[in-house]
Amino acid sequence: MSQAYDSIYDWLSTEDKKFLEENLFHPYADFLSEGNPKFFNRIHNHSTWGNAAVGMIGLVMDNDELVNRALYGLENTNIDKAARDNDGGLIQQPGQKAGFLANIEEAFSPSGYYTEGPYYQRYAMYPFMLFAKALQNKRPELKIFEYKDGVLIKSVDALLNLTDADGEFFPLNDAQKGMSFFNKSVIMAVDAAYYYGEQDPRLLSVAKKQGEVTLDDAGLAVALGLKNDKEKEFQKKSIVLSDGSKGNKGGVGILRITEDESIFSLVMKFTSQGDSHGHYDKLSYSFYNDGEEVIQDYGFSRFVNIEPKNGGGYLKENTSWAKQSIAHNTIVQNETSHFNGDFDTGNKYHSEKYFSDFSKDNVQIISAKEENAYPGTKMQRTMALIKNDIFQKPVLVDIFRVKGDQSNQYDLPFYYFGQIIETSFEYDSPEKLEKLGSKNGYQHLWKEASGAAEAGNARFTWSENNKFYTLTSATMQNDSLILGRLGASDPEFNLRRDPVYIWRKSNTKDAVFASVLEPHGSYNPVTELGNNSFSQVQNVEVLLDSDEYTGIEITGTNKNKLLLVISNNDAEDQHNIKIGNREISWKGNYTLIEN
Amino acid sequence: MSQAYDSIYDWLSTEDKKFLEENLFHPYADFLSEGNPKFFNRIHNHSTWGNAAVGMIGLVMDNDELVNRALYGLENTNIDKAARDNDGGLIQQPGQKAGFLANIEEAFSPSGYYTEGPYYQRYAMYPFMLFAKALQNKRPELKIFEYKDGVLIKSVDALLNLTDADGEFFPLNDAQKGMSFFNKSVIMAVDAAYYYGEQDPRLLSVAKKQGEVTLDDAGLAVALGLKNDKEKEFQKKSIVLSDGSKGNKGGVGILRITEDESIFSLVMKFTSQGDSHGHYDKLSYSFYNDGEEVIQDYGFSRFVNIEPKNGGGYLKENTSWAKQSIAHNTIVQNETSHFNGDFDTGNKYHSEKYFSDFSKDNVQIISAKEENAYPGTKMQRTMALIKNDIFQKPVLVDIFRVKGDQSNQYDLPFYYFGQIIETSFEYDSPEKLEKLGSKNGYQHLWKEASGAAEAGNARFTWSENNKFYTLTSATMQNDSLILGRLGASDPEFNLRRDPVYIWRKSNTKDAVFASVLEPHGSYNPVTELGNNSFSQVQNVEVLLDSDEYTGIEITGTNKNKLLLVISNNDAEDQHNIKIGNREISWKGNYTLIEN
Ligand SMILES: [Ca+2]
Ligand SMILES: [Ca+2]
Ligand SMILES: [Ca+2]
Ligand SMILES: [Mg+2]
Ligand SMILES: [Mg+2]
Ligand SMILES: [Mg+2]
Ligand SMILES: [Mg+2]
Repeated sequence: MSQAYDSIYDWLSTEDKKFLEENLFHPYADFLSEGNPKFFNRIHNHSTWGNAAVGMIGLVMDNDELVNRALYGLENTNIDKAARDNDGGLIQQPGQKAGFLANIEEAFSPSGYYTEGPYYQRYAMYPFMLFAKALQNKRPELKIFEYKDGVLIKSVDALLNLTDADGEFFPLNDAQKGMSFFNKSVIMAVDAAYYYGEQDPRLLSVAKKQGEVTLDDAGLAVALGLKNDKEKEFQKKSIVLSDGSKGNKGGVGILRITEDESIFSLVMKFTSQGDSHGHYDKLSYSFYNDGEEVIQDYGFSRFVNIEPKNGGGYLKENTSWAKQSIAHNTIVQNETSHFNGDFDTGNKYHSEKYFSDFSKDNVQIISAKEENAYPGTKMQRTMALIKNDIFQKPVLVDIFRVKGDQSNQYDLPFYYFGQIIETSFEYDSPEKLEKLGSKNGYQHLWKEASGAAEAGNARFTWSENNKFYTLTSATMQNDSLILGRLGASDPEFNLRRDPVYIWRKSNTKDAVFASVLEPHGSYNPVTELGNNSFSQVQNVEVLLDSDEYTGIEITGTNKNKLLLVISNNDAEDQHNIKIGNREISWKGNYTLIEN
Repeated sequence: MSQAYDSIYDWLSTEDKKFLEENLFHPYADFLSEGNPKFFNRIHNHSTWGNAAVGMIGLVMDNDELVNRALYGLENTNIDKAARDNDGGLIQQPGQKAGFLANIEEAFSPSGYYTEGPYYQRYAMYPFMLFAKALQNKRPELKIFEYKDGVLIKSVDALLNLTDADGEFFPLNDAQKGMSFFNKSVIMAVDAAYYYGEQDPRLLSVAKKQGEVTLDDAGLAVALGLKNDKEKEFQKKSIVLSDGSKGNKGGVGILRITEDESIFSLVMKFTSQGDSHGHYDKLSYSFYNDGEEVIQDYGFSRFVNIEPKNGGGYLKENTSWAKQSIAHNTIVQNETSHFNGDFDTGNKYHSEKYFSDFSKDNVQIISAKEENAYPGTKMQRTMALIKNDIFQKPVLVDIFRVKGDQSNQYDLPFYYFGQIIETSFEYDSPEKLEKLGSKNGYQHLWKEASGAAEAGNARFTWSENNKFYTLTSATMQNDSLILGRLGASDPEFNLRRDPVYIWRKSNTKDAVFASVLEPHGSYNPVTELGNNSFSQVQNVEVLLDSDEYTGIEITGTNKNKLLLVISNNDAEDQHNIKIGNREISWKGNYTLIEN
């Protein structure tokens, strides 16, 4: 509306302008702000839309009061301190600022990560960028694109890093799969970041894929940049995006490793809650083979704009399933979600990055800790993408340590896709399918089979999109292995019937879940030839586990061995330890030894 | 081997040739033929491989006896009349000829349809064409490519017609999905059909897609044809391919209708058994939206060349599930497969085409009858693809008439893919999943939900690949509707977890299952915009059903009506009937009236 008014502003008579402004625009801006303080004064993408609307009409009308209201929020509101939005979020955190600048300040970390996640960042980029562009034109002294060390420009880079090989956003928190950088908001954001930022030539290659530019100075600059062959590839590398306005509330690690033409990507989440769109998914991950999900994050339970599905709005299964911890590839204790699924509790805490190292070609590694999701239980997960002669393709090594102050049940799910090819363990298939549990998301899973692990390894091989994957897990005698499928307690058929493999340890205080996820082989349905349908991992073993060190050894079918040792504390020190008869020493958080 | 020997024949000394022939080739040819008469003397793709091997080495060695043995089979065999192959097929039908020519004679219908189905035709094309090419070179007087009115050339045309928009074969009978005309055998067959046939320019466009030619005269001719821009599009139109060596054992109807850029294809099967690779699937169908399966045929249960899955061989679920009638989109009586799932019985019979009409632009229609699958029960199915202003896209109208001599239960399954969006009927979702039945394939289905239909319509809407589909069925008071999912009694996870919607009539002698399957709308996950997620069909009603006529009326939400009347007998006559107060008259099998 502001844009439309701006476009015809000079053509209108003074009378008409006065009429429109007094009877339409000013009252409407007041309605959006003073009339709806709970909507306007929040840190939330909804408020950003409101701030931008009020601020932009203020800029057109040259009304400083409206512009300032947009930038800094309403000064005096009578918002109840305990008031909540219909999505469960607090309207206003104590002591929190409001308005457009506060939303830039609070919602983005210094790295440009938007706390609600990439799906909603994509949505919020529209008002953020549009208002910022208008401010840059009319209030250049504000240097909005330099605000918070240029975070709006950085946020575009962060958003592009949060995509798979197809340009689709990783579906962290509430998110629809398939949303990608082809969305209009992102086209606009990329053009603006190029023009108002430092003409980063990598953005040109993204704009080229988008195949569209905005009809303004920014779009023109991009088009000219492309015309003059200035683009460079936007190479997505391993990166940690911090979360929290000061970058001190955990983050997201994206690890990438390339083999032949394929990129394997690991997305590990150790953020804060993510506001009202957050999921209870501490230390969870997803894993991609180029643009294909190998281990998935479910995303949200919603069919946007599909009228018959609750008018296109959030479905109740978003709360009962999609947000719950068991819907994620992370540990669930005693069939209860992190923070007991309580938003206020979750909102107080965040995970912590422990270390990461992306400096080596054959290993990309990250480690994070979470000590608040279950009071009394400490969790630490270290994940690494490793290339080695043992494996046909890079593998994902996962060392998930958990330390309880009492005996618990720990479940670690793996949301794979596709067809089971082979398992190394025996299991029972029931004559009737029962639900895996009664609440916290467990009521939505059917138990298709369950078996007891042996001391040693459990091997699970499946096939998806004509590729093979094997998960080899270092199991103990009383572990159980459950094959489940989504769809129970779902009378409206709102949930996809996705499969899951769950590794369970019962009556356990301390445990290490160590496993290797190994992509291998391929199948061609036209030639009917398959290759490497068997795993190249012969054994995975936890050689050492203490408060100080955890060490696992991977043995290949070629008899080569790989030893990965993590120092669980005092990360930067020099370490000298003995494993069996062998003395090893290294400096830093971890060592990876071939032999 | 014959090809290799042929290539170096002129380079070898007479001595070496003698040694090789006496010690290797002749004994080997004898082993394949006289040593294994049960393998060699059958009508089966295995025998064709054997015939070709023996005949081709005979041609290289100029050994007429071997060539004749290959062409005409073994004269005296001591095959037990009741002997069967390990796949259950009879080795030799009474009075049946053997050898290469007999396989051409018996396995192909005059239309070029191969009775085992397109997947095995693709496989058999290799020995058929290779030996034929060798015969054409060395025994041109045999005019092998003109044999049986040129059926080898016609069979290539038939095979190409049995593909979806991606070139993938319709998975009739035992068949792996994804197998396509990109297979080497088909490349060879297309080149040979072009060169040894009449240089059909449509084959050039297929060869162009294949992107490869054989390294011989045929491949050269194709390459030159393409170089000289002679190709014409291979337009797949509606077609009936007869089955049976004389073309008198039913067939397959492929109906195609185009809207904008999309081709909708219906594949209706009313063939004979299909030898040992046949399924109990009389009057079943599948439906495609371009290359996407909307209503699927399951194909076989086998992972070819995937070692961990029974060494890549047929799985027991191929018999317990894939071949059974309930695995197909056709009527199942009393939870028993057609012919009671007995191969010998099934092998005696075939369905009959009743009529087809592809002459009109707005309707493509086919009707077939099956009176032997269930003794005492007569079945007639009429299927039509119809374009009309009522619908956004062409719809599939299905009128399945069944007439029993006693009360039966009739199940009509629809194997859709994707996510349920909306149903018009109420159903119960159980707390535990039970199997739908105990045998004949029913033991493999979980009952996810079931509901009672009302007199009137049952509407079932789902979404797949961002497109919508609605099935509107004219139901009666006591019909039930079952939502099922494959995967029960499947301890090895050999079966896909595909969904099914089953329309059941219990305690019923005569029934009409009339429904409209309506593709509509689309969804874009990037713009998040959906259109036409609602059906445009307001009502489907059986206005008339007698031994003489069946008439159904479709009413659109735009209030337009379509009346389709089928004459159930005396097809070509002039008909004058009264429906309500309305008199209608027409000549022929059916009439479609808009009003
Ligand atoms: Ca993707
Ligand atoms: Ca079939
Ligand atoms: Ca296809
Ligand atoms: Mg999630
Ligand atoms: Mg994706
Ligand atoms: Mg079948
Ligand atoms: Mg296909």
